Amino acid sequence: MIVHIDKDAAVPVLAQAVSVLERKTTREILEHILLDARGDALHVRSTDLKISLVQSLPCEVKMQGAAAAPGRKLYEIVRELPAGTATLELEENGWLHITAAKTSFRIPTERPDEFPEFPVSPDEFFRFPALSFVTMLDKTLFSASNDETRPTLCGVYLHAQGDPNTGSHTLRMVSTDGHRLAIMEQPTSVDLHMFQDGLILPKKGLTSLKSLIEEAGDEFEIAQSNGKIFCRIPHAHMCLTPIDGSFPRYQDVIPTEPKNRVTLAKDAFADALRRVSLMTDPDTHSVILDADRGRVLLTSMNTLTGDSREEIEATLEGEPLRIAFNASYFLDALRHLSGPEVRIEIDQPLAPCLIRSDEDPGYLCVVMPIRID
Amino acid sequence: MIVHIDKDAAVPVLAQAVSVLERKTTREILEHILLDARGDALHVRSTDLKISLVQSLPCEVKMQGAAAAPGRKLYEIVRELPAGTATLELEENGWLHITAAKTSFRIPTERPDEFPEFPVSPDEFFRFPALSFVTMLDKTLFSASNDETRPTLCGVYLHAQGDPNTGSHTLRMVSTDGHRLAIMEQPTSVDLHMFQDGLILPKKGLTSLKSLIEEAGDEFEIAQSNGKIFCRIPHAHMCLTPIDGSFPRYQDVIPTEPKNRVTLAKDAFADALRRVSLMTDPDTHSVILDADRGRVLLTSMNTLTGDSREEIEATLEGEPLRIAFNASYFLDALRHLSGPEVRIEIDQPLAPCLIRSDEDPGYLCVVMPIRID
Repeated sequence: MIVHIDKDAAVPVLAQAVSVLERKTTREILEHILLDARGDALHVRSTDLKISLVQSLPCEVKMQGAAAAPGRKLYEIVRELPAGTATLELEENGWLHITAAKTSFRIPTERPDEFPEFPVSPDEFFRFPALSFVTMLDKTLFSASNDETRPTLCGVYLHAQGDPNTGSHTLRMVSTDGHRLAIMEQPTSVDLHMFQDGLILPKKGLTSLKSLIEEAGDEFEIAQSNGKIFCRIPHAHMCLTPIDGSFPRYQDVIPTEPKNRVTLAKDAFADALRRVSLMTDPDTHSVILDADRGRVLLTSMNTLTGDSREEIEATLEGEPLRIAFNASYFLDALRHLSGPEVRIEIDQPLAPCLIRSDEDPGYLCVVMPIRID
Repeated sequence: MIVHIDKDAAVPVLAQAVSVLERKTTREILEHILLDARGDALHVRSTDLKISLVQSLPCEVKMQGAAAAPGRKLYEIVRELPAGTATLELEENGWLHITAAKTSFRIPTERPDEFPEFPVSPDEFFRFPALSFVTMLDKTLFSASNDETRPTLCGVYLHAQGDPNTGSHTLRMVSTDGHRLAIMEQPTSVDLHMFQDGLILPKKGLTSLKSLIEEAGDEFEIAQSNGKIFCRIPHAHMCLTPIDGSFPRYQDVIPTEPKNRVTLAKDAFADALRRVSLMTDPDTHSVILDADRGRVLLTSMNTLTGDSREEIEATLEGEPLRIAFNASYFLDALRHLSGPEVRIEIDQPLAPCLIRSDEDPGYLCVVMPIRID
């Protein structure tokens, strides 16, 4: 294998490849990425066995061939190369020789047949609007869990629904870590029937997918085969294995018509929350919200270090109310909500609290309040 | 105490105050900063007992008074306040009430007489050019040690010398962590006789002092009293306790006329070093430099992960040589050296290696080579 690559084009490809690798693995080959030079591209493959990614980097192939190179080390090296052309050459002893200008590196590689195969792709793909998919991911990924002891929460639940009468379709993405929840639903022109029974896709893979789609622009295709989801972006192809298990019955926690509703300016509310949360108890991050006619009062108290309070103008429909919640969950929701105003809806102090905006149809965040002692 | 302060003016003052505090202390009062409202300023005092700092923040004093407030918490609060005027009011129960627009915070305080006194200042101060002092600190602070088991290395050694014949004076700053050394010497018009026997001033205090002088511009005064060093900057006054003990006999390690000398382009050398050091052994960071007529060859090898090499044009005076060194020490030196070229001077492979530049007179870095197996 001998290829000439452009350094600046190679860096983002290798960064994406490395993002898929497991941080810790006992199988050494999974710390590697497969380099496969064919035609007019270097095909770069990486996998953690649940997520497989192959990207093609256009380049000049002087001699075709393949090798599995240590992923993070190769990325570090290419990132530090001088701008311009670099050459990757696989030596007879199996070492990869990387040269650019007067720089030269040699790293050991593994045989390409040691590297896991990329799953067999289906023939039929469905086109989906890239921007819409990225927006949905952005608005849900943040509230998926990182707690690996609860695997079904460590992903985003995708659920497609069709209305046989109108022929219209919707795609819904839902994520929850058990304390808060985000739902985004959009009408689509495509029948994504692979999601009709609901599938949980892993947070790490969707995060990589999101940034691949963002870089590629508006082309994006999706398919299913043998229980796996395949995504095609120009120059990249990803396969995601859904997470086994049932997603929580999230509909049960969402009240349909909460009796009380507070409307306030989103940015002023976020600024106030950030300030008041400086004095929260470090265990609960608990802030108390008192809503009354014309104003919301935010307070927090840490018996050791002091207290804080702040008033914000607000409109209340329903009864005056007092709830306590983790300020950081609220701030996350406000960061992802569009529009200048936010609406908080709740039945009673310990019921789930809805956060939404008229300017952000189809999007809903839910935060579970904390009991006030 | 009631004062109106400007938030944007208060933030850097509190940041400086907090930078002096110990990270961990068993004496709770040392986590506090003293707020003392008098005249038309709020005097903000902080100390770790070895470094004492008092800054004056111009403000409107409605009622004079003093209290010791938890330093980091007060800084966090003021940093998050909305821009504009904030009010600090000491309540009768000893709590400090901080308000701005519709925000309000209350934090407990300690009595001001619990707070350590600021050492008594001498009457006579010497003016010193601020820019020159800051440059000297910048070029030496980085190579002082952070290893608290070797306290005399955790500071910069200041040494003033006068020539009775010419009446000229020089100030020298020296720092070393035992593996590398930096020396900066400048002629001065001032006889800083407090440094005539040499004093080691603590790294943390000098780092704070440097940023205070940088913010204040070109005014800077220095004095000695009762074995302590006092520095006066507009709006701030710092007292530093020198570190007890003898500074190493650093002159002994500096060869006066090394036999071999390599000259090369500084930035190209630094880029090459950074790349080659990607493949060093993580324990030694050892890079090998081979100098010959017309070129320097840098190589590094980690038997597990691979090797790297890079060639740079260079001029050699003396014999071809081969030395090994910790790349990060060399990179630190190059970062602080002025001018487009760097000169490496050495007697033989295990002798101290001098790093300097014709464009940076008075400045010298020394790195101890590593034995090559």
